[in-house]
Amino acid sequence: MIIVMKPTATKQQVQHVVNLVREMGLKDHVIEGTDLTVVAVIGDDRKKDKDVVEQAPGVDRVMRVLAPYKLAALERKPERTAVTVGRSCVFGGKNIPVVAGPCSVENEKQILTTAKAVKQAGAQALRGGAFKPRTNPYAFQGLGEEGLKLLAAARDATGLPVVTEVLTPTEVDLVAKYADCLQIGTRNSQNFKLLDAAGRSGKPVLLKRGMAMTLDEYLQATEYILAAGNENVILCERGIRTFEDHTRNTLSLSAVPELHLRTHLPVIVDPSQGTGHARLVADMSRASVACGADGLIIEVHPDPEHAMTDGAQSITPGSLSELIVSLKKIAGAIDRDC
Amino acid sequence: MIIVMKPTATKQQVQHVVNLVREMGLKDHVIEGTDLTVVAVIGDDRKKDKDVVEQAPGVDRVMRVLAPYKLAALERKPERTAVTVGRSCVFGGKNIPVVAGPCSVENEKQILTTAKAVKQAGAQALRGGAFKPRTNPYAFQGLGEEGLKLLAAARDATGLPVVTEVLTPTEVDLVAKYADCLQIGTRNSQNFKLLDAAGRSGKPVLLKRGMAMTLDEYLQATEYILAAGNENVILCERGIRTFEDHTRNTLSLSAVPELHLRTHLPVIVDPSQGTGHARLVADMSRASVACGADGLIIEVHPDPEHAMTDGAQSITPGSLSELIVSLKKIAGAIDRDC
Amino acid sequence: MIIVMKPTATKQQVQHVVNLVREMGLKDHVIEGTDLTVVAVIGDDRKKDKDVVEQAPGVDRVMRVLAPYKLAALERKPERTAVTVGRSCVFGGKNIPVVAGPCSVENEKQILTTAKAVKQAGAQALRGGAFKPRTNPYAFQGLGEEGLKLLAAARDATGLPVVTEVLTPTEVDLVAKYADCLQIGTRNSQNFKLLDAAGRSGKPVLLKRGMAMTLDEYLQATEYILAAGNENVILCERGIRTFEDHTRNTLSLSAVPELHLRTHLPVIVDPSQGTGHARLVADMSRASVACGADGLIIEVHPDPEHAMTDGAQSITPGSLSELIVSLKKIAGAIDRDC
Amino acid sequence: MIIVMKPTATKQQVQHVVNLVREMGLKDHVIEGTDLTVVAVIGDDRKKDKDVVEQAPGVDRVMRVLAPYKLAALERKPERTAVTVGRSCVFGGKNIPVVAGPCSVENEKQILTTAKAVKQAGAQALRGGAFKPRTNPYAFQGLGEEGLKLLAAARDATGLPVVTEVLTPTEVDLVAKYADCLQIGTRNSQNFKLLDAAGRSGKPVLLKRGMAMTLDEYLQATEYILAAGNENVILCERGIRTFEDHTRNTLSLSAVPELHLRTHLPVIVDPSQGTGHARLVADMSRASVACGADGLIIEVHPDPEHAMTDGAQSITPGSLSELIVSLKKIAGAIDRDC
Repeated sequence: MIIVMKPTATKQQVQHVVNLVREMGLKDHVIEGTDLTVVAVIGDDRKKDKDVVEQAPGVDRVMRVLAPYKLAALERKPERTAVTVGRSCVFGGKNIPVVAGPCSVENEKQILTTAKAVKQAGAQALRGGAFKPRTNPYAFQGLGEEGLKLLAAARDATGLPVVTEVLTPTEVDLVAKYADCLQIGTRNSQNFKLLDAAGRSGKPVLLKRGMAMTLDEYLQATEYILAAGNENVILCERGIRTFEDHTRNTLSLSAVPELHLRTHLPVIVDPSQGTGHARLVADMSRASVACGADGLIIEVHPDPEHAMTDGAQSITPGSLSELIVSLKKIAGAIDRDC
Repeated sequence: MIIVMKPTATKQQVQHVVNLVREMGLKDHVIEGTDLTVVAVIGDDRKKDKDVVEQAPGVDRVMRVLAPYKLAALERKPERTAVTVGRSCVFGGKNIPVVAGPCSVENEKQILTTAKAVKQAGAQALRGGAFKPRTNPYAFQGLGEEGLKLLAAARDATGLPVVTEVLTPTEVDLVAKYADCLQIGTRNSQNFKLLDAAGRSGKPVLLKRGMAMTLDEYLQATEYILAAGNENVILCERGIRTFEDHTRNTLSLSAVPELHLRTHLPVIVDPSQGTGHARLVADMSRASVACGADGLIIEVHPDPEHAMTDGAQSITPGSLSELIVSLKKIAGAIDRDC
Repeated sequence: MIIVMKPTATKQQVQHVVNLVREMGLKDHVIEGTDLTVVAVIGDDRKKDKDVVEQAPGVDRVMRVLAPYKLAALERKPERTAVTVGRSCVFGGKNIPVVAGPCSVENEKQILTTAKAVKQAGAQALRGGAFKPRTNPYAFQGLGEEGLKLLAAARDATGLPVVTEVLTPTEVDLVAKYADCLQIGTRNSQNFKLLDAAGRSGKPVLLKRGMAMTLDEYLQATEYILAAGNENVILCERGIRTFEDHTRNTLSLSAVPELHLRTHLPVIVDPSQGTGHARLVADMSRASVACGADGLIIEVHPDPEHAMTDGAQSITPGSLSELIVSLKKIAGAIDRDC
Repeated sequence: MIIVMKPTATKQQVQHVVNLVREMGLKDHVIEGTDLTVVAVIGDDRKKDKDVVEQAPGVDRVMRVLAPYKLAALERKPERTAVTVGRSCVFGGKNIPVVAGPCSVENEKQILTTAKAVKQAGAQALRGGAFKPRTNPYAFQGLGEEGLKLLAAARDATGLPVVTEVLTPTEVDLVAKYADCLQIGTRNSQNFKLLDAAGRSGKPVLLKRGMAMTLDEYLQATEYILAAGNENVILCERGIRTFEDHTRNTLSLSAVPELHLRTHLPVIVDPSQGTGHARLVADMSRASVACGADGLIIEVHPDPEHAMTDGAQSITPGSLSELIVSLKKIAGAIDRDC
């Protein structure tokens, strides 16, 4: 870290900072500039709380130099990690899989119909929520284990591996019993106990970006899963919270290439949550593939007007089918396939 | 809700929307304007997903009219709720209590010293983290149950009731055994299983605002606790995520008077998290009291330069003492006391 | 507009609102719901300040229904407007032109070299700043009219039409004398006097989105230019201000398809300003084309390490050349060309 | 500045960066850490564009150390600047003046009535817009010079100095002829030509913070005015653009104490623009005074329901009168007066 002293800092204050640095077992390097003094800290300060130095008299601010994550870092593992969900759906390779399905599992007919339709359209995995985190306590909260069973039945019927959300550490085992990949949603992206439990489950984890997370914070959350011994993590840009009001979230696609520069893990995009409106899903899916996304997760409902949740952002199987045709062309343009 | 049709919508499309509304068991009211048609929906549509209508052909957008929470609403209960923590620390009355203590419980000496010092300074409750949600997996995660025991010992020594954070539903009982008030942090503000579990604990709950939450979302999260049968909820503005970089978060004090216009629950402010810098805590505490806050929660450490967590935003007991002197004057200026 | 009364509003308060509406020369329509009353206002209320009604006793809030712009609206003109810059560079058709050049015109050699190189790479117009709006008063402010002359010389040498920024109404005539298209930057996007002056210049205007502008505000700013009699306006998404720190701005690509749903004007993207980092420009350019952008404006410098401004986000002519090869493929995938 | 090299950077790349630094006439200082190398740059690099170094191979990022403003900095002038508007209204001293008046000057009767009423209520200066920057081109744009004359007449009648907005450099002389203080609004906060022209006018300038400006950017904008030879600048927090929807802007009061730590200039608050709702103005005014604001600027209209602009955020003279009574008490609590 770099400790910037105030222009008015005294020699004693600089020395005090130097002492604090040495107390931490780190090496100091003092640079006297024309306007102010800077103390460069040498050594691995990732576990140190930079905050404490900021309080010392005469300190203006403290800037981190080292990335606060290690296992997720591209430097540690320059080759890309390929994460396999189910038997053969691979994220992080040349192919760009589409995960599709309803926001919520509603009943047997709905999930089976949808599963068959998205497979037909070209999707390579099935999504569907059995445990739903709902902003409103009076809204439909999902079918629970019954929903998981229906998802498993849909997998049996179609061969599509199942991606579904888990909400709390105690339900990880239950969900892992039925699912091929555990999804952790944006509202749980810093639920560290859940990250740890999912990391221990042995299943691949799809970790959505928190809606107010920087990429540094996102990769630190990822690090919890990796540190639990699980390297099969799929990252997912799903929109951030901004002042914009034409979408539910602002899909920040630059996160895709930037994450590829920082981590070896695959990065997919959720254009459904990321916009909140079905009318924008196709264009944003094409943009995602064009900027290097390793997959897409898209909400599809056979009858969006009667969906129990997220109808506004669900597209129909017919639209998905047309979309995948065009995604294949975009993928081809950058020497990938979909 | 109000359904705004596109200027180009056909009569058939309007009729289709009317049919969807009736299917939901609600009443429609069609208003033909000069430029476009609007369908007003009559009835309690809080549990309906407005999204589904948004997908219907010819619909431009859907606007909610009813507040999506009921139990938390001021209309339901126009007199203010007073929440008592421990025997006699009341939030929501004329008095404005200060909760103070370290970010983390570090050891017996630190917590006992701090507890005595903040009591001496005028604080009415003790805060301190035993289970710490940390962005970085390699950072100190708290002492766990040992920390809870030390907090209880500090309460015994000082008489100050204890406010401490709980991270996951399965630990609610454990934390409730030692604490007088359960704190739910910003990263768990939409951890709905935790909200529900805390609601069932019987203890007062201090629910911090999520860093990317609108007030509507905040009051819906609160509704989870109230719906679990617990009306002893203290709200807490603790800063939101914005583009500003001179603070860790942007403390949005207008949330205090606005929440008072929407809910009967008490609203406090956390100027430590809300700014991230000790240098701003005193001024923002004074501002909080002046705009009607029902309490403050402030991080205090006897030796901030050596705090294990959040040193940069912790003030010393001496500073707290001076601060409370000035808060008493501000409180007096608006006919309250502190 | 829709006026939502509080659940506690009295009949007298509703009647008072009705009277206010009638005073404005508009028609009212009162709807009594189960929980509250709503007053729908019929007539063109675009010029009315909704704010005044919000102050009336018993009013909870006021929601606009009509889009606040008319000339820019797709409803008025369902066919797309094609804006021609210079003789033959058309924005808004099947072709997707790339505008390229340095952030600032630095000297004759630099601008001529760059102009030739970007033409060679496939760019269809030349950008370059002669008047530079600089955050820092001590930074290079541009060559002024001398820069304009150099741009005109570069146009003569290459045939590329010139896009350059104008900062203040009194300089519109001067800039229009040399430029083929007037650019109005993000910091001037609500400089209404400048919008009006540019509208009167007779030249096409490239209006960048303000970094904190909603799309409604953006189209109202556009309306100033159209209302001055100029329909040759090119819109440009260039990133918005958010909490993200891995880019200088957050490029919000969903604005592209959403603007296409609201207006007939062409929409281009600036991936250089929109990210602030050369390393992200190629991927975000590809994403822009894939989601329907009608053009790109890209900063190119023959020697970015020695650029006088914006070196970090400038790519080299060689990189541009490779990029355009790949953009042509992406464009082909959606039946357009580049 | 501090140049952080990538962990994978080669010695040649470090040397290349060192050469770039030397080319700029600055001194380099290379620090080899355990994980990566950092190049500290010594000398005044305020005028250098850090961007160019960021492009050099092997560079991870570049961090500024020196504040990018000089004249506005507290280090240069540790005593506070007191800015006098008119004969005796002083911002930056012990007294905290309230500037009050309508959003727009509408007619003689309205401005005279309001001026007398706000004086009676205790305001020390009169605000009122003659040139209005309006988001919507069809909205009322102000009375122009006629409005300025009415403001001057109101000053003659009451003795209150006049604060009014100027929109464009060519109107600075006209506005300065009538006004005691030139206001530059949030949308013009980076209209650098206007900042410069206002700086040359000889009149005090009230510069509002841009709605998407960091404090560093704000102080750089201020520097334009100071560099034009005018040190009579009043800063004004007026709310920033965030995701919040219960206010028009998020009033960021921590900017007040933070600006006091960085600059010698007075800082006032606009709670009317800063919230957009009359119902929040009194509480946020009290909070502003409590956290150290050197003044307030408040929209007041005798009949807000019929105001031509900004009715929703205007309070009545009666409310202002009550508010100032309570502000005096708050001011007294921190040893100031109002």
